[in-house]
Amino acid sequence: MFDTVNIAVMGHGVVGSGVVEVINNHSQSIAKKAKKEICVKHILDLRDFPDLPYSNLFTKDFKDISNDDSVKIVVEVMGGIHPAFEFVKECLEKGKSVVTSNKELVAAHGAELLKIAGENNVNFLFEASVGGGIPVLRPIAQCLAANDLYEVYGILNGTTNFILTKMIKENMPFDEALKLAQQLGYAEREPSADIDGHDACRKICILASISFGKHVYPEQVKTEGIRNITLDDIAYAASADRVIKLIGHAKLMEDGKISASVCPALISRDNQLSSVEDVFNAVMVRGDAIGDVMFYGRGAGKLPTASAVVADVIDCAKHLQARKYLSWDEGEDDYVVPAETVKSRYYIRAGVENLEAAKEEVQSIFGDVAYLSRENSKGELAFITSLETEGKLYSKIDELKELKNVSVLHVLD
Amino acid sequence: MFDTVNIAVMGHGVVGSGVVEVINNHSQSIAKKAKKEICVKHILDLRDFPDLPYSNLFTKDFKDISNDDSVKIVVEVMGGIHPAFEFVKECLEKGKSVVTSNKELVAAHGAELLKIAGENNVNFLFEASVGGGIPVLRPIAQCLAANDLYEVYGILNGTTNFILTKMIKENMPFDEALKLAQQLGYAEREPSADIDGHDACRKICILASISFGKHVYPEQVKTEGIRNITLDDIAYAASADRVIKLIGHAKLMEDGKISASVCPALISRDNQLSSVEDVFNAVMVRGDAIGDVMFYGRGAGKLPTASAVVADVIDCAKHLQARKYLSWDEGEDDYVVPAETVKSRYYIRAGVENLEAAKEEVQSIFGDVAYLSRENSKGELAFITSLETEGKLYSKIDELKELKNVSVLHVLD
Repeated sequence: MFDTVNIAVMGHGVVGSGVVEVINNHSQSIAKKAKKEICVKHILDLRDFPDLPYSNLFTKDFKDISNDDSVKIVVEVMGGIHPAFEFVKECLEKGKSVVTSNKELVAAHGAELLKIAGENNVNFLFEASVGGGIPVLRPIAQCLAANDLYEVYGILNGTTNFILTKMIKENMPFDEALKLAQQLGYAEREPSADIDGHDACRKICILASISFGKHVYPEQVKTEGIRNITLDDIAYAASADRVIKLIGHAKLMEDGKISASVCPALISRDNQLSSVEDVFNAVMVRGDAIGDVMFYGRGAGKLPTASAVVADVIDCAKHLQARKYLSWDEGEDDYVVPAETVKSRYYIRAGVENLEAAKEEVQSIFGDVAYLSRENSKGELAFITSLETEGKLYSKIDELKELKNVSVLHVLD
Repeated sequence: MFDTVNIAVMGHGVVGSGVVEVINNHSQSIAKKAKKEICVKHILDLRDFPDLPYSNLFTKDFKDISNDDSVKIVVEVMGGIHPAFEFVKECLEKGKSVVTSNKELVAAHGAELLKIAGENNVNFLFEASVGGGIPVLRPIAQCLAANDLYEVYGILNGTTNFILTKMIKENMPFDEALKLAQQLGYAEREPSADIDGHDACRKICILASISFGKHVYPEQVKTEGIRNITLDDIAYAASADRVIKLIGHAKLMEDGKISASVCPALISRDNQLSSVEDVFNAVMVRGDAIGDVMFYGRGAGKLPTASAVVADVIDCAKHLQARKYLSWDEGEDDYVVPAETVKSRYYIRAGVENLEAAKEEVQSIFGDVAYLSRENSKGELAFITSLETEGKLYSKIDELKELKNVSVLHVLD
C-alpha cells in the first residue's frame, strides 16, 4: 500500500542492532507515519553475524551501499571519525540522506557535512547525537526558531551523572561508583571519554553550533572531568544547598562571540537540573521570548538512541528532498573566548594549618567570601568567591601562602 | 533577497500582539530560517487600535483575509470556538495554512480541521496550544515517532501550579494564593477555566490525541479542579514526601482504549514533576523505546506563546505544501473508559470522633492502609489506600460510618 524506501545501516553495534530492532518491531506504525515502507537492505560491519534472522543483509564492503542507487537513506552508527567521515561524505555526494548518532563526527565535521548535504539536496540528521533519545536538536532548530537563543547548558553525560548521583545520595566514593557504573554497563572499561568530559564536550559543541549558528569545535572548549571530585566536596556543596553536576555550558557574549566549557559545577537545588539523577540527561535552553526550556530523559542506551535514529529516518523518508532546517556556518579561530576571560563564582577548598591566618589571607586576597562547613572539617577551609574571571582567580590562588592543596570548582548561578 | 510570504493575524489580544511583536523584532533571523520574508498583511480585530505603527493593517471584516489570495498563512489567536472554527475552516478550504494557539478549538475540532487541512494540502499547526512556548507536540509527533507511546501526563496549567506552589512553599491558603495570582495577572477575574481544570482538560485532550492517534474530546475526560485543596492536605502530603499538583493524565489500556483525567494528585518528590514550580508547566511522555521524556518551561505568557506561534508560521512558510506529520482519527464514544473503572491509589482525609473505632472501620473496609500525620491533626484521620477502581472506592466510602466529611484525592505512582 505504501512505496518502499531502502535504507542501509553502517555499524551493527549496540545502536545499530537497536535500529534494526526498532524498525522491525514498529514496522506498521512507522509505515503509517512515514507514508513509506522502510526496508533495511544492507548492513555494513566487519564482523560476522551468522545467526540473525537478517544475516543475509550483511556486507563488509562499503561500495555495496554507496553504489546501490536504490538506497536513499544511510544510517551511520559506526562511531569514530574515520572512516565514518569519508563514508558519510560519499553517501551525501551520491544523493543519499544520512542519519547518524555519531557525536564525535558531528562535533568535528558538522558544518562541512551539512553544507555537502545542502548542495546535494539531501538531509543530514543527527538528533541522536545529543541526549540519546531525548528530542533536543529538532525542537531547538524548529520550535524555538522565533527566539534569539543566548544560553544552552545541561547534564549531557549519563555515566558521570550516575556516578555523581551515587556520591551525592549514597555517599559512595568516586572509585567505587565508577566500578559500579562499569559493572552495570554504563561506563566503558576505559572510561576516559565519559569521566574526563570528552563526550559531554562533543555534545555541547553540537548544541552551541545549532543554537548560535556557528560551528564550535571540541578543541575550543575547555574540558574538565569529575575524577577529582571527593565526598568532601559533595558535603560542602550540600551545606550550601547545592549539588555537584558535570555541566556542559555555552553562552552568547555581547560581542557575538561565545563562551563554552565542560566542567563539574556546584548548582543550586532550586535549579531544575539539580534533580536530574542517575543516567538521565537534561538540556536547558534560554531564549529571549521563551525564557527557560528544559528537555529531560535518557541520554543514552540502545533503544532510546535507536528510536531517535529511526525518527530521523522516518523524517528523511517523508522528505527525500532536503529540508535544510539544520545548518550552521563554519567556525572561526577566535569565536570561542579564552576560558581565562570568562567570569564565574568559584568554590575553593584547601588545607590550612592556622585557621585564623588563613581566613585573614582569604579576606585580603578574595575580599568577602561565603564560607562552607561540613562535619569533621578540621584542617580545611572551603568557601565560595564572588564573581571573577578564571584568569584572575588563578593569579589570586598563586598568591595564597596559608592555603595548601587548593582545589577549585565552578559555581553555576 | 528572499521571496515574501503574506500572513494575516486574527485577534490582537495578548498573544496576537505578541505575534506581531516577535515577527517585527526578529525579522532578519526569521527570514534566514524561513528562507522567506514574512509580512503581516492583515490583522483582524473588532476593536480599534489607532495608535500603533501598524494601525493601517487592521480590518474588522474576515472577508478581507479569506478573499485575499496573496495571504498564504493565517494565525488564529482569537480564542473561543465561534467564530474561530468557521474562520479557520474557511481559510483551510481556501488553501491557506493555519496556525493557532487556541486549545479550546483544537480540543473540540482538531481531527476535523486536520482532515480538512490534509484534503487541501495545507498545514494546520498548533504547537502553542499545549505548553505555551514549550516544544511538545512537534517533538512527540516527530522525534518520538519510532516509539509506541503509552502514557502522557503533566502539569498543564500555570495558574493552578502557581497557586499550589504558594500553598506548598509559603503555607498560603488557597483563597489568598488565588487573589495573588489574579493581582499578578496569572489568573483571570473569572478564574474557573484554570481553577476548575478546564484549561488543563483541553490540553490533555490534545496530548492524548496526538500521542495515541484518536481524538479525545473534553466531555470524555473527568475533570476536577483545585478549589477544595486545603493546607491540611498539603501538610499530609508532605508527611509522605509528596506534593499536590494538578495533573492531566492519559494512558493507553491493553484493549486499545484509554483512560484520561484531570485532577489534583499527590505525587512523589522523586517524580521530576514535583519540582516544577510557579507558572512553569511540564509534560512527561512515556514510550516503549525511549522510556520517560519530559518537556519543561513556561506554559503561558505573551512572548513564550507568541514565539511558539511564530515558529509554526516559519515552518509553514518553509513548507507551503502540506507536511501532514500531524494527524489523528476522529474519536469514538467508548474510546475513553469510564473513570469508575480506572485503578488508582487514593488519599483520604476525614473527620473522626473515636479514633480507635475509625481505624478499625478503615481496616475492615479498606484493609491495610498507610496512615499520614501532621501537626494538630486531632479529630482527623488521613491515609493512602491500596490500588482500586474509583467505582469501588466510592462504594467503600459509602459504607463508612465513623468517618465524616470525607475528602478524596488521587495518588499518582
